[in-house]
Amino acid sequence: MANVNDLKRLADAASVQTLKYFRSNLNVDNKYEDGFDPVTAGDREAEAAIRHILDADFPDHGILGEEYGAKNLEARHVWVIDPIDGTRAFISGLPVWGTLVGLMEDGVAKKGFMHQPYTDELYIADGEQSWLIEKGGEPQKLATRQSATLQDATVFTTSPALYSGAEAEGFKRLEDRTKLARYGTDCYGAVMVASGYADIFIEPGLQPYDIVALIPIIEQAGGVVTTVDGARAEQGGTIIAAGSKALHEEALQAFWGRA
Amino acid sequence: MANVNDLKRLADAASVQTLKYFRSNLNVDNKYEDGFDPVTAGDREAEAAIRHILDADFPDHGILGEEYGAKNLEARHVWVIDPIDGTRAFISGLPVWGTLVGLMEDGVAKKGFMHQPYTDELYIADGEQSWLIEKGGEPQKLATRQSATLQDATVFTTSPALYSGAEAEGFKRLEDRTKLARYGTDCYGAVMVASGYADIFIEPGLQPYDIVALIPIIEQAGGVVTTVDGARAEQGGTIIAAGSKALHEEALQAFWGRA
Repeated sequence: MANVNDLKRLADAASVQTLKYFRSNLNVDNKYEDGFDPVTAGDREAEAAIRHILDADFPDHGILGEEYGAKNLEARHVWVIDPIDGTRAFISGLPVWGTLVGLMEDGVAKKGFMHQPYTDELYIADGEQSWLIEKGGEPQKLATRQSATLQDATVFTTSPALYSGAEAEGFKRLEDRTKLARYGTDCYGAVMVASGYADIFIEPGLQPYDIVALIPIIEQAGGVVTTVDGARAEQGGTIIAAGSKALHEEALQAFWGRA
Repeated sequence: MANVNDLKRLADAASVQTLKYFRSNLNVDNKYEDGFDPVTAGDREAEAAIRHILDADFPDHGILGEEYGAKNLEARHVWVIDPIDGTRAFISGLPVWGTLVGLMEDGVAKKGFMHQPYTDELYIADGEQSWLIEKGGEPQKLATRQSATLQDATVFTTSPALYSGAEAEGFKRLEDRTKLARYGTDCYGAVMVASGYADIFIEPGLQPYDIVALIPIIEQAGGVVTTVDGARAEQGGTIIAAGSKALHEEALQAFWGRA
């Protein structure tokens, strides 16, 4: 359906556009009048570059993108694109944003990548195994940390302020029972779980384009990712990933106050 | 007293040690029995490498380091070292930690650098001007954003949970009046203010080794950095930096609820 080289070409094409604007004196538009949702020219141009390749090479596939909407979503294969995940990091000059592209087959995320072009880290799931290609070097196999229990665990989330109601209480319960919480991570939280440097990644209110690329990267490194209700994560929502099945279960129990 | 090449040599020597341990399966010691304060072998070995050079080249200078304590602090020139600022980022695999080395003259921070060796970003203050040397390229002059008012400002802090009492209320008041708050940044917050990508950097409970290197980088890019009481920042405490004098004053007024 698409191989690792196809994914790499998409990452390269997007990086040309995003790096033009990273740490330049970019202008930030507001997508919504109230609230802050920065969208940059890099965001739009990177998605356009990716869609240009997909339209040419996979004309029968569907596409769902953050910037340019949906096309042919009833297709068996659907690409899901977030050209710049972590736009706040991007506009603040921090190299912890990423370009996310995932490929779903019959609604299930099978392949994908997260690319951070400034550091040149490409986290990629080929359908069976997740890899890190760092600075153009040899692919390194990714593996989650399988041994951590909740009390040893590091948990990554973008900000506790993003949770509301029962989920705010749930996050607080979860955070209180882990060893270390780390904020401000966006998609980096997910790839650090896949790499075995963090144990839990949790984010509220995700859209499909925020998570589809990351699902196979986490799963094919040995991790588990679902909604906080235990469903598949492809449709977004409040998503929780962990390095092992046991830790994922323990984290969900803590989140819901069942243990 | 020490030139840019001396500072670069210190950065290079430290990076050999830190990069051995970044994203390796390192062991993390706990410095304190209660609470979490990771110290890595990279931390200790990087400081040892820096002190080795300083002892040889500047035998009359004083040294204050996070790991190996103080020597000859009554000297006119004192080096202040944090081998890995952002140890939580370091152990979590995130490239937003840095090696900090500052040089004080008569108690005032005059020169210094922040080096992120994985991305190879060297932020350096030469005594008059701040620079970024990115991936070994040509030095680029750093300049803060002078125009931002509080309502346009982005504010960086490691975590709102680190503030207590009146300062917790002060941070909340400040955050509520700014456009965007970003967590989890450690020393990156300071160099992003110096670079003009963020407007305010605020951190509670800093030690001298957390801030001395960053003072000249911010000041020599056009910014202002003091304690929240308006004193010089070299002795640490709760520190606030801003891109301009006007914004710094406005931020302090908001923090203390005076406006």
